[in-house]
Amino acid sequence: MATASISRASASQCHNLFPRFYALRRAKFRDSVCPSSRVGRRNGILVCCAPQTPTSSPPSTAISPPALSGQELTLCFGSYSIPHPKKVEKGGEDAFFFSGYNGGVIAVADGVSGWAEQNVNPALFSREMMSRVSSLLKDEEVSYDPRSLMKDAHAATSSVGSATVIIAMLEKNGILKIANVGDCGLRVIRRGQIAFSTSPQEHYFDCPYQLSSEAVTQTYLDAMVCSVELVKGDILVIGSDGLFDNVFDTEIVSTVGTSNDVGNTAKALAELARSHSVDLRYDSPYSIEARARGFDVPWYKKIFGMKLTGGKMDDITVVVGRVESL
Amino acid sequence: MATASISRASASQCHNLFPRFYALRRAKFRDSVCPSSRVGRRNGILVCCAPQTPTSSPPSTAISPPALSGQELTLCFGSYSIPHPKKVEKGGEDAFFFSGYNGGVIAVADGVSGWAEQNVNPALFSREMMSRVSSLLKDEEVSYDPRSLMKDAHAATSSVGSATVIIAMLEKNGILKIANVGDCGLRVIRRGQIAFSTSPQEHYFDCPYQLSSEAVTQTYLDAMVCSVELVKGDILVIGSDGLFDNVFDTEIVSTVGTSNDVGNTAKALAELARSHSVDLRYDSPYSIEARARGFDVPWYKKIFGMKLTGGKMDDITVVVGRVESL
Repeated sequence: MATASISRASASQCHNLFPRFYALRRAKFRDSVCPSSRVGRRNGILVCCAPQTPTSSPPSTAISPPALSGQELTLCFGSYSIPHPKKVEKGGEDAFFFSGYNGGVIAVADGVSGWAEQNVNPALFSREMMSRVSSLLKDEEVSYDPRSLMKDAHAATSSVGSATVIIAMLEKNGILKIANVGDCGLRVIRRGQIAFSTSPQEHYFDCPYQLSSEAVTQTYLDAMVCSVELVKGDILVIGSDGLFDNVFDTEIVSTVGTSNDVGNTAKALAELARSHSVDLRYDSPYSIEARARGFDVPWYKKIFGMKLTGGKMDDITVVVGRVESL
Repeated sequence: MATASISRASASQCHNLFPRFYALRRAKFRDSVCPSSRVGRRNGILVCCAPQTPTSSPPSTAISPPALSGQELTLCFGSYSIPHPKKVEKGGEDAFFFSGYNGGVIAVADGVSGWAEQNVNPALFSREMMSRVSSLLKDEEVSYDPRSLMKDAHAATSSVGSATVIIAMLEKNGILKIANVGDCGLRVIRRGQIAFSTSPQEHYFDCPYQLSSEAVTQTYLDAMVCSVELVKGDILVIGSDGLFDNVFDTEIVSTVGTSNDVGNTAKALAELARSHSVDLRYDSPYSIEARARGFDVPWYKKIFGMKLTGGKMDDITVVVGRVESL
């Protein structure tokens, strides 16, 4: 049949697969402020869902975006946090927040650990930022603009320290607005692949842009501001660099595919990040990036084929959101 | 000084750098429809700039986003195309369009080469799509919405074939709206790093989502729709997969940094992609992805340490835009 044959031609033969490789022979609906202190002494799991029954069916290829269909969307949340092994007693330095407000709001802050050497608890700034985000959320001036929310929450934070911060706000029409300073990250998984991704901002390797109690660092004006149109069935994965430095996007996609429960998915992602972070032989996103930036083992180890490997020990925070229709 | 010391602490020591690795180019302001036929028999360079003198100064760290400052932005364009070596006589199968309309519009289409086996010229669909985008651009209904423009241009295209298509429209307030179907790509480079990136959509490895003359493939409803707030000095790089399959993002960033001339930057990126595409030993983004998907050399070659390498021979289209203030 012509269509089938043309369809096949524009599939298996599209872009001439390997033309040269042959030659090679080729939860309840409520706000949740979740500072590490609340989940710090143990691995913490939180789930927050819209009241309607969640669907487990994947998005069809004919889904009309809410902006076109008038459909209203909301988020079903799950989260999981694992503090750095050496910071368990203090609950780690990550903090996060999620809320069912409007279509749903997720925020993650990662306290910059270097402050510990100034005898400052790096967790205080990130926790207060998330607390301020929570208290300011219903303020009309900021309730639909993550950058304004970031600005006001930063201005209201009195703790000494600094943090990387990401805030994502879903409007009921399906538009997810994002403001991001630093190396927290966000992924949108649709139909089994990464459909949208944020990019980290940094001064140099392993030193991200950050909001701070000091005037010398970044502000809301430095935030990367973008938006993406979501559809029912999309999965959001938002986390601190403890997730993205240890888990590849391909692993995030495959892990998301293993469960329809957002809490279990968040836990699975955090535990995967944790296992990679303590594996000295694992060639993690972090170690690959380190080598690309010129960091590696000494020459005499290279002679024996050794290279810089290993995950990155860090606080790990994962918030997973599934897009549901109201 | 306390601030300096704290600043240093929240920089060189932030995230405890390697805690564990120690143990280890211009023309009149006009629309340009640029099918491969126009640039096919030779390498083609086109440049289109806003009338004001472009600035070469990089963005400061204190730039206010136009949405906040009321500043109006526009794009200065440069482009370069290199057809697949075996398709030079026919001008390749990529097509692109750019215009200074509103803040600036860029579109790229990559004709799916599999159609050649149906005795269909794969270039016809992509070229007509770009021509329709050009003729429909000033239609009030689509002039500010890349998805609507994609929908109407697709509906108006009568040629048989299919193509991956990306359309990006800059509003004078700095908001860049994007609709993307398939594996053409877009990067925003700000302050020497990737600030924003699109993700390719595919059915399986090397077979992207595509708009087609057939009813069995994707439509505007499958487009990934997102937006990003740009600031003066941002560099946009938009291209076909012939660029992104052969050139890493780090190379795009370093190449963008070598010239203030958008035409020269587009040419340098296309020529870099071309040189990688014909290098059988180059471990390209394409070959790395192929191995990750399970494609590699036979076992008996692996014994001798061989692996699947090489760039991807393809049509290469690069459009570079620099964000300028009006």
